[in-house]
Amino acid sequence: MKAATYTGNRHITTMDGEITAPAPNEVVVDVAFCGLCGTDLHIVDGNMDTRVDIPHVPGHEMSGTISEVGAEATGWAVGDRVTVMPLHWDGTCPACLDGNQHICPQLDFLGVDVPGALQQRWRVPAATLVRLPDELDLQTAALIEPTAVAVHDVRRAELQVGDHVVVQGGGPIGLLIAIVARHAGASVLVAEVDPARRQRIEDLGFAVADPGTSDLASVVDAWTNGVGADVVFEVSGAETAVRQATALAKVRGTIVIVAIHPQAQPVDLQRVFWRELRILGARVYRRSDFERAVTLLETGVVKVDSVVTNVLSLDRTGEAVELLRSGSAMKVLIDVQGAQK
Amino acid sequence: MKAATYTGNRHITTMDGEITAPAPNEVVVDVAFCGLCGTDLHIVDGNMDTRVDIPHVPGHEMSGTISEVGAEATGWAVGDRVTVMPLHWDGTCPACLDGNQHICPQLDFLGVDVPGALQQRWRVPAATLVRLPDELDLQTAALIEPTAVAVHDVRRAELQVGDHVVVQGGGPIGLLIAIVARHAGASVLVAEVDPARRQRIEDLGFAVADPGTSDLASVVDAWTNGVGADVVFEVSGAETAVRQATALAKVRGTIVIVAIHPQAQPVDLQRVFWRELRILGARVYRRSDFERAVTLLETGVVKVDSVVTNVLSLDRTGEAVELLRSGSAMKVLIDVQGAQK
Repeated sequence: MKAATYTGNRHITTMDGEITAPAPNEVVVDVAFCGLCGTDLHIVDGNMDTRVDIPHVPGHEMSGTISEVGAEATGWAVGDRVTVMPLHWDGTCPACLDGNQHICPQLDFLGVDVPGALQQRWRVPAATLVRLPDELDLQTAALIEPTAVAVHDVRRAELQVGDHVVVQGGGPIGLLIAIVARHAGASVLVAEVDPARRQRIEDLGFAVADPGTSDLASVVDAWTNGVGADVVFEVSGAETAVRQATALAKVRGTIVIVAIHPQAQPVDLQRVFWRELRILGARVYRRSDFERAVTLLETGVVKVDSVVTNVLSLDRTGEAVELLRSGSAMKVLIDVQGAQK
Repeated sequence: MKAATYTGNRHITTMDGEITAPAPNEVVVDVAFCGLCGTDLHIVDGNMDTRVDIPHVPGHEMSGTISEVGAEATGWAVGDRVTVMPLHWDGTCPACLDGNQHICPQLDFLGVDVPGALQQRWRVPAATLVRLPDELDLQTAALIEPTAVAVHDVRRAELQVGDHVVVQGGGPIGLLIAIVARHAGASVLVAEVDPARRQRIEDLGFAVADPGTSDLASVVDAWTNGVGADVVFEVSGAETAVRQATALAKVRGTIVIVAIHPQAQPVDLQRVFWRELRILGARVYRRSDFERAVTLLETGVVKVDSVVTNVLSLDRTGEAVELLRSGSAMKVLIDVQGAQK
């Protein structure tokens, strides 16, 4: 079988791979589609070389069909259509015992800490499987994982019907947050610098602003009639974004940190104090977020055409990574079986 | 009557003052005791010259006895013993209509935006009065306001019985937070650089650490058996304190910003994201916090001797400010009638 493999030195290539037989509590999934994510870009850029074992197969936003079932993986059969919630926690630490398994300090993330889904056959623990409804096609199902991120972020914000929401950063996760928040009853404005992304988001009926050319605080002030935003999702990772976010939030407003900020960023704590703001970190998802994402895709709240701009075959993964890097594509999918087995 | 008056250029002096007759909805209070607060220091240091009208009478942590009652100030009589909740909000803005009157963007703070309590007779709106129980002496009652700050901070944190709490900064507010949190069922560790303050806090039965000479993250790690703190109160205002706070908090832990940070401070947002931390601003108090503070002082949970280290007469206010500035006194009170009328 073929596997897209990061070999170090900013290089990803499609090569022959092999997997061992599934353990009793594992299955093998023939991966159909796999989306590329910012994390995959970080891996290929070498930013995670201390965490991943090289050579490494990335990928964690997938759909597929079970082709082998371990002896103890009860309830699953060859031919079952599935996605994978790519988390494996220890289940015994204080975070897990508090119900925060998804941010267990010993968490293994499939596709980062162990091999991922950019391979034609993927061996995974049966506990990570999520069954697909018959109505959901495999291409759409590859969006379940990023949609679950958005569901988690919106739940974490404790978003209320009627809220005014600003999303800083209109990439795939920002767009999915906008869709999920709107469906939960919010008015949404997306701030995005790339004109192609901004146009796509505006065409989906969202208010948009270009933070590069407009004073976002004034825009949000006018949009909220002087009140400020109930919730700001910081998805851009831009250096000035969090300082900006505190300027957008209303008294007692909420800022959700979704983006990765490798460096400590200056935050206007005087504003946090003065307005009694709330800043929340939000990372990955719980099982219930994943299941909600399935429903949102099944019922057409999130449409595949709204999010996916490109589908490339597995042997063109390097090209797909460059497309993602360009910043104007939205979600890029890999057709994993679209190369010789 | 006498009034301690900030005359600009880092100078405060006691001089003759006068007040006009109370409006129908106002009373005049003969101020008994008034505590000095960090805000008063900021005023005398000239940091708030753009906000206060010079000459300005500061002070807002007080107790006293009503000596004149406006025609419409029903329910109040000459001789009533009171304290003042020194907030005046507009009542009509979105923050007020949301129930957040205490952080109304148009808030007037008595003692900052209008004259304060460091004068022998103080004219205030009747709506700001809080009645004192008979059992509460006037010196102890001067601690109601800072205790209400601590009550507000602990409530804002949604502190739970059994929580491990770290207080960064063991000044009067830090100490009061420690007392209120312990009374609410938490284990408390106070990090404070000044040895005299640290000794006083340790003598009150709290765990202490010196963040100047020890690695606070290691101390808290050992103290919490590797879990981290449920709640960190940042009361120090130190430049590195918030970055430090994110290192102390457990997975899904809470950091409450109590101190004033005039400059934007670097925050480890990667840690906020990774551990799904929560950062909350907390400012002043609600009426219910004030009333709870009365109860905590009345029942001896907060003891005046635990907090007050110095009582000086009104004509020695300048000296009292220097004592506060030294950083080793705890709460400094002014005996406002302790100078010729």
